[in-house]
Amino acid sequence: MGKGMECSENSQTNMKVIHGEAGYVLEDVPHLTDFLPDLPTFQNPLQFNPAYSVVKQYFVNVDDSVAQKIVVHKDSPRGVHFRRTGPRQKIYFDSDEVHACIVTCGGLCPGLNTVIREIVCGLYHMYGVNKILGIDGGYRGFYAKNTVPLTPKIVDDIHKRGGTILGTSRGGHDTSKIVDSIQDRGINQVYIIGGDGTQKGAAVIFEEIRRRGLKVAVAGIPKTIDNDIPVIDKSFGFDTAVEEAQRAINAAHVEAGSFENGLGVVKLMGRYSGFIAMYATLASRDVDCCLIPESPFYLEGKGGLFEYIEKRLKENGHMVIVIAEGAGLDLLSESFQNTDLKDASGNKLLPDVGLWLSQRIKDYFSGQQKMVINLKHIDPTYMIRAIPGNASDNVYSTLLSHSAVHGAMAGYTGFVVGPVNGRHAMIPFNRITEKQNKVVITDRMWARVLASTNQPSFLNPKDFIEKEEPQTQTQLEDGGKY
Amino acid sequence: MGKGMECSENSQTNMKVIHGEAGYVLEDVPHLTDFLPDLPTFQNPLQFNPAYSVVKQYFVNVDDSVAQKIVVHKDSPRGVHFRRTGPRQKIYFDSDEVHACIVTCGGLCPGLNTVIREIVCGLYHMYGVNKILGIDGGYRGFYAKNTVPLTPKIVDDIHKRGGTILGTSRGGHDTSKIVDSIQDRGINQVYIIGGDGTQKGAAVIFEEIRRRGLKVAVAGIPKTIDNDIPVIDKSFGFDTAVEEAQRAINAAHVEAGSFENGLGVVKLMGRYSGFIAMYATLASRDVDCCLIPESPFYLEGKGGLFEYIEKRLKENGHMVIVIAEGAGLDLLSESFQNTDLKDASGNKLLPDVGLWLSQRIKDYFSGQQKMVINLKHIDPTYMIRAIPGNASDNVYSTLLSHSAVHGAMAGYTGFVVGPVNGRHAMIPFNRITEKQNKVVITDRMWARVLASTNQPSFLNPKDFIEKEEPQTQTQLEDGGKY
Amino acid sequence: MGKGMECSENSQTNMKVIHGEAGYVLEDVPHLTDFLPDLPTFQNPLQFNPAYSVVKQYFVNVDDSVAQKIVVHKDSPRGVHFRRTGPRQKIYFDSDEVHACIVTCGGLCPGLNTVIREIVCGLYHMYGVNKILGIDGGYRGFYAKNTVPLTPKIVDDIHKRGGTILGTSRGGHDTSKIVDSIQDRGINQVYIIGGDGTQKGAAVIFEEIRRRGLKVAVAGIPKTIDNDIPVIDKSFGFDTAVEEAQRAINAAHVEAGSFENGLGVVKLMGRYSGFIAMYATLASRDVDCCLIPESPFYLEGKGGLFEYIEKRLKENGHMVIVIAEGAGLDLLSESFQNTDLKDASGNKLLPDVGLWLSQRIKDYFSGQQKMVINLKHIDPTYMIRAIPGNASDNVYSTLLSHSAVHGAMAGYTGFVVGPVNGRHAMIPFNRITEKQNKVVITDRMWARVLASTNQPSFLNPKDFIEKEEPQTQTQLEDGGKY
Amino acid sequence: MGKGMECSENSQTNMKVIHGEAGYVLEDVPHLTDFLPDLPTFQNPLQFNPAYSVVKQYFVNVDDSVAQKIVVHKDSPRGVHFRRTGPRQKIYFDSDEVHACIVTCGGLCPGLNTVIREIVCGLYHMYGVNKILGIDGGYRGFYAKNTVPLTPKIVDDIHKRGGTILGTSRGGHDTSKIVDSIQDRGINQVYIIGGDGTQKGAAVIFEEIRRRGLKVAVAGIPKTIDNDIPVIDKSFGFDTAVEEAQRAINAAHVEAGSFENGLGVVKLMGRYSGFIAMYATLASRDVDCCLIPESPFYLEGKGGLFEYIEKRLKENGHMVIVIAEGAGLDLLSESFQNTDLKDASGNKLLPDVGLWLSQRIKDYFSGQQKMVINLKHIDPTYMIRAIPGNASDNVYSTLLSHSAVHGAMAGYTGFVVGPVNGRHAMIPFNRITEKQNKVVITDRMWARVLASTNQPSFLNPKDFIEKEEPQTQTQLEDGGKY
Repeated sequence: MGKGMECSENSQTNMKVIHGEAGYVLEDVPHLTDFLPDLPTFQNPLQFNPAYSVVKQYFVNVDDSVAQKIVVHKDSPRGVHFRRTGPRQKIYFDSDEVHACIVTCGGLCPGLNTVIREIVCGLYHMYGVNKILGIDGGYRGFYAKNTVPLTPKIVDDIHKRGGTILGTSRGGHDTSKIVDSIQDRGINQVYIIGGDGTQKGAAVIFEEIRRRGLKVAVAGIPKTIDNDIPVIDKSFGFDTAVEEAQRAINAAHVEAGSFENGLGVVKLMGRYSGFIAMYATLASRDVDCCLIPESPFYLEGKGGLFEYIEKRLKENGHMVIVIAEGAGLDLLSESFQNTDLKDASGNKLLPDVGLWLSQRIKDYFSGQQKMVINLKHIDPTYMIRAIPGNASDNVYSTLLSHSAVHGAMAGYTGFVVGPVNGRHAMIPFNRITEKQNKVVITDRMWARVLASTNQPSFLNPKDFIEKEEPQTQTQLEDGGKY
Repeated sequence: MGKGMECSENSQTNMKVIHGEAGYVLEDVPHLTDFLPDLPTFQNPLQFNPAYSVVKQYFVNVDDSVAQKIVVHKDSPRGVHFRRTGPRQKIYFDSDEVHACIVTCGGLCPGLNTVIREIVCGLYHMYGVNKILGIDGGYRGFYAKNTVPLTPKIVDDIHKRGGTILGTSRGGHDTSKIVDSIQDRGINQVYIIGGDGTQKGAAVIFEEIRRRGLKVAVAGIPKTIDNDIPVIDKSFGFDTAVEEAQRAINAAHVEAGSFENGLGVVKLMGRYSGFIAMYATLASRDVDCCLIPESPFYLEGKGGLFEYIEKRLKENGHMVIVIAEGAGLDLLSESFQNTDLKDASGNKLLPDVGLWLSQRIKDYFSGQQKMVINLKHIDPTYMIRAIPGNASDNVYSTLLSHSAVHGAMAGYTGFVVGPVNGRHAMIPFNRITEKQNKVVITDRMWARVLASTNQPSFLNPKDFIEKEEPQTQTQLEDGGKY
Repeated sequence: MGKGMECSENSQTNMKVIHGEAGYVLEDVPHLTDFLPDLPTFQNPLQFNPAYSVVKQYFVNVDDSVAQKIVVHKDSPRGVHFRRTGPRQKIYFDSDEVHACIVTCGGLCPGLNTVIREIVCGLYHMYGVNKILGIDGGYRGFYAKNTVPLTPKIVDDIHKRGGTILGTSRGGHDTSKIVDSIQDRGINQVYIIGGDGTQKGAAVIFEEIRRRGLKVAVAGIPKTIDNDIPVIDKSFGFDTAVEEAQRAINAAHVEAGSFENGLGVVKLMGRYSGFIAMYATLASRDVDCCLIPESPFYLEGKGGLFEYIEKRLKENGHMVIVIAEGAGLDLLSESFQNTDLKDASGNKLLPDVGLWLSQRIKDYFSGQQKMVINLKHIDPTYMIRAIPGNASDNVYSTLLSHSAVHGAMAGYTGFVVGPVNGRHAMIPFNRITEKQNKVVITDRMWARVLASTNQPSFLNPKDFIEKEEPQTQTQLEDGGKY
Repeated sequence: MGKGMECSENSQTNMKVIHGEAGYVLEDVPHLTDFLPDLPTFQNPLQFNPAYSVVKQYFVNVDDSVAQKIVVHKDSPRGVHFRRTGPRQKIYFDSDEVHACIVTCGGLCPGLNTVIREIVCGLYHMYGVNKILGIDGGYRGFYAKNTVPLTPKIVDDIHKRGGTILGTSRGGHDTSKIVDSIQDRGINQVYIIGGDGTQKGAAVIFEEIRRRGLKVAVAGIPKTIDNDIPVIDKSFGFDTAVEEAQRAINAAHVEAGSFENGLGVVKLMGRYSGFIAMYATLASRDVDCCLIPESPFYLEGKGGLFEYIEKRLKENGHMVIVIAEGAGLDLLSESFQNTDLKDASGNKLLPDVGLWLSQRIKDYFSGQQKMVINLKHIDPTYMIRAIPGNASDNVYSTLLSHSAVHGAMAGYTGFVVGPVNGRHAMIPFNRITEKQNKVVITDRMWARVLASTNQPSFLNPKDFIEKEEPQTQTQLEDGGKY
């Protein structure tokens, strides 16, 4: 850690915040020496690796930090920074001593296998580590299943396959049993690949490890196909997902265009944020209406969705609607409150927003409107999630994995990795889990979507301004990224 | 027509059946001269076309016929033949006189635009015809909409797009108004692209034209993505559909393999026949169970589907089920008879076999079995229908279109075109519409599927033999094609 | 063999030709009992296989034959037939006794791995055979390399990969050593996957085996991406190749269209026949000129290629030329006769027709014409060969493999398998190797290409008729397939 | 311009450099008011646009700048910044007055049509501009050809097509005639899409416009598929190119793996920099050796390429080499100096590095080594260039275009647009054209490639350090981006 900085550690949130001159702030991540001050260090073996020996200044300066805010004025305060990731001259694990494990949790995402592959290959080729375990089927695999050994040979081809070779699961787990298993098996590096909930779990695991005073580094690789992780530029698999979503939109466009009053409805991923819907709409340009969780809408009456659909069909004869899975959930729960939609066995059917919206539109037009429409609903979710990462996501996933490996080897722990304005950094857990990265409807990208679709904003601008809350994310301070 | 053959025309069915020696039978198609005996003939302009002038024996002999039965013994009767399609030396339309129209009906199918393109280009480039109309939005477009002019320039690029540029529709129409429109507009060649129902409509239109004594040739191009048209080898778009279905099966395979007790259910097209499901299963080999309309199955009890699923999950940890949309409809209607599954507006929800089966499986395992499964349902139907034809279907669609054009120019009418054992022929309407081309479960291809999936046959072989009915289709006489 | 037929065996060519009534001819394949008359027979185990037990008439009648000529007149002689392939009630190998081997020779072709997979799985699942060897690296692998054991588990996923897992090679081999190895290892079924030259080699191996009186069945699976195998409908991998070739043609079309006087030249496979070039041209329709080995052309002077290029560029601004690798070889050898094109090491550079033609065109326009053109040459050959088979080729390859397995198990030998008019048959070696399956320029498909490109025929029709030779192939008798 | 900053304009280079506190530097771009100080301003119509009205803080602060250096220490100087792009409250063109033109120059690149589309749609939808011309066929089109009118309707679908609808060309042009044409036609916004050479031309055009005192804004959109443009994060089309390059590498991998001593050589784009080769190698991981222009190599002797190939073939049986088109040019020119490689017409053949290297390898192994190898050379260049942009490049190209439009409307001129650490900025011409963006072999990405391929570095580390030159690019200061 740099000398001469003021460092305040908030024991409540475990945040290490370091202040410098001219408003410089470093939100630092924990280091093993924070609670194990006497750890020995080792020379990084990378300097003897022929591949890396050609790289001048290969090692990152231990004090390098990455600025979160880069749109500035002359007099702007320098703002928040994160500790840069990358190889350090001094490392805190001897290669022979490392016993790493990898676990994948939550839903599928293109690139998962690449991340696994590159943690294994990175540890092996860069640091000479060869004790690496895979945890089978998510967090519960730590105590409920056998582990699987991972070697470069075993993972050699897996980046060309979708899914995760380790298996995954959602839901509950027992932190104490996990840390017991880590301790009992002698694991000292834990790589956790998963989304919001998973990283919250990782934070708790890290706390328990710290409480027990174990020399175990915990590194998170944030995963969400929805791209709704704050701070970092984007999550792996997102590019691939947007690319593949084009296919469904194209199909909807063709179906809609071939029938009188043809209407294609495409449901895309995005429970809390509409990034995939928004980017796929922009990339495709065949979409007439894009509905996302962040932007409320209403169906009936003046300025509502039904009115817009009717107008488009009359003008154009067909239209395409893209809806993120979390859009309109307020309307949907209203709609289902008073009905008794159950299956043959008496189970309440889960409302799916794509099916729900499709049915509502059909009802509207077959009802009072007496207008024959041809609606086709397409849900490509599982076809998108299951493909392997594209080239761009493959390279990106490699960098993420190597960042995590360098961080853990250098003794950092309790962090997730990710690019901040293009440079990979280590970010404290709480910055990732405290809030969602939302497409804020005041963002310029959202304006671009509205302009490209010509859809109504479904907003009374006056209302909007009143409801507005103070913003805290840099990305939003300047009206979006671009 | 060949001389010296016995010809019997059954006025009831309008079939022209010609008998020859050694059991030779020709099921012929109508010719304009059958009811307009004094029509003049013209020299086929193709003989002056530089492209075609190099072809020796370019013209088809007027008596060429195509054998339907080609697996024979030494003493086999020669069996049924169909009139071969192709250019004739003598034609019954002067190029300047031709006024053609094209209509597409029913659902989308890869290759539709290629068929349209090649009727236009075939008429124009081979016969110098330049009055070609497109009928907008299916049969009703004859009287309810404006027509669109079609030229080689307009259709130049359309084979690279999915859907149909003419628009399509399903359902009712008024034959009399259609023939009025044909007569009023002076149309004398009608090309009708559509499935079973559409060709039945075409047969009625043909009858009405014949009744009115109009010089109008009616040619059908059979269209069904399901491949369930009898007599002909396969329908256009089928290859493309099977190819694209692989994508969904791959996704199901990845999803299933990544979760504990993962189960991927893929619903594919096939209302009355399971060709797409069967071929996609064989091509992919990642499928553990393929359910088709032709092969009944049951869910519960010994030898049932649930038992098989449980067994596979215990052995393998995951499985993939492919189900054709028309499979298990008997079970499904039982299931829905006593329930009251309605949406918010009180409409009875249409049962979808994929969703229904998925729910039944979930209920079964969450119920008595207390087994946690991870089921993912994928329905790629609209994503498959909407893509353009692949290269193979493009070439095939071209040949179909040219066959129809040659037939109509030569004065034949009331026929559909299609390959019989690889050679294109003209087939009377009634042979196409009288029965479905079913994957019969006694076919060897079905045995191959069963062998590849190792699924149970869900059949009591004894029962099966008792229920057996006499078979009439050549394809089945020899236990299938291969 | 059917009783009561006349059978004449020509010992020179080893052909078994059987004559029946009404001009029926069966060109039969050898059977082990022809030279080992006392072989015992066994019950086919398929009748006890649950998957196959549902199939009525599962077994093929031993006398089934497939007609080669199916476009007939009332009085046509019945013509040549081939023995139908498929499972027989009686087989000549006990499952435990079978020791099979598989070898792949020659260039890559999509679907190779599917063929290997399905011979292994077919033998295993249908007949319970589990001694199957892979020969490594083509014919020489029989004596120069170790064999590799093949099981259903090993080949499970290989159909999704391009290439051949067995490796392949071209060129010389020692028949005697191969048969020694077969004898020494106790192999009694030899599956040989390869093209024209390979099947000639197989015929010689078969002769040597017969000479030694070994109970060894030799079955060939014909392989050529070029589709130039006579008698059979098409070769595996061809569909996939045409599909993939579209990609290169599209690229050429875009490049040509973006530059002034843009000219895209695409070289495709086809040493002796232009099937790929012809079908890819027809499927794409973006091609202005298609050059194939069967249709000679000339560059300079009136009616020559240069004149046509100049005309197209002036009219249209750009053009796309597709050339098969064997087209224009006469011109090319003239061109290189007097030059001394050698590389730095003094080796004579092999002339590649695509590069050669591109250079000649550039020279012509930069020379006397002083016309600036933008020529781009694209050679996608290796990118096409190396992809896995598409769904259609996967299913087709499966049928080929099973046909070979059924034939060998039933004691037939010295044959290749393939569909004749859609039905799979066994064909004597000599019918496959004696001549190439050429796109004859008198074929209607070629006329379609000429019509679609509007290119000159480069032929003086008078010359053409004079040079004409008697035709022997059924496919050509009627001016092509369609 | 912000007040109170020191501004020094270097009239030699036309650079406007503004200095602030703590080492803040702004390298600003010209503004029309620099030489036309009395221009009137207008209210930006975007504030009345319904799509944009929902965006809070839609307008960029006129003083916003983007930091080029974001990896910093506590005491780092703030370094170079660029003026941020985006909509300004005040604009310098009335919508009705704008007369824009677009020109594309140089080679093809995925996304070109998207850039054209979005300049047109951005001007039209955001600013109400409807006088937009396309210049046909590159710079010379300004005076040698007719212009083409561009409207949102005309460009609606072009982003789905490869190439450029405007046509393009390379090479010489007459600046004076171009500016005459701009002046004569009354054009006042010039959008120039092209690479290094094109932007140098744009700088000269800008100087001439400034000299003549015209109110004409000149905006450059940097285009290079090679990604070798300095300062900006990456160029459009690069992602798509790397994705598509995978296809060729996969084919090479399959071909190499199917033959004994199989060797696949893939030539990829990259005249001066090896980004595509490097990223494609990393994404694919099937590559054994990656050769790029920035890293010299030698063929013969100890540590040379031939030795490495021999070693890999002996160990592994096959290998894949990726070579960028500009790699090894030094060796190649040596090689060709003394030979006389000419074609039939006496033209010196252009040396292609892929063909050259392939021949050298063949010579080596057929020569002294007497080792039979199977080498396949694949050059996918034109198949990569000609495809349309993928989703990621489509969105990126949109942002680039809108950035250019906002900049020009706000009166900035003589700039190119591009993202700097993820935020779009305006960059003075000279920063883009002065030097190439090279993969410096001291970069960590290059180390990753070396580690992934295990290839030798072909470097004597001692030599390397001696030859080292002072570095000026931020990207390199910290050992690369990640």
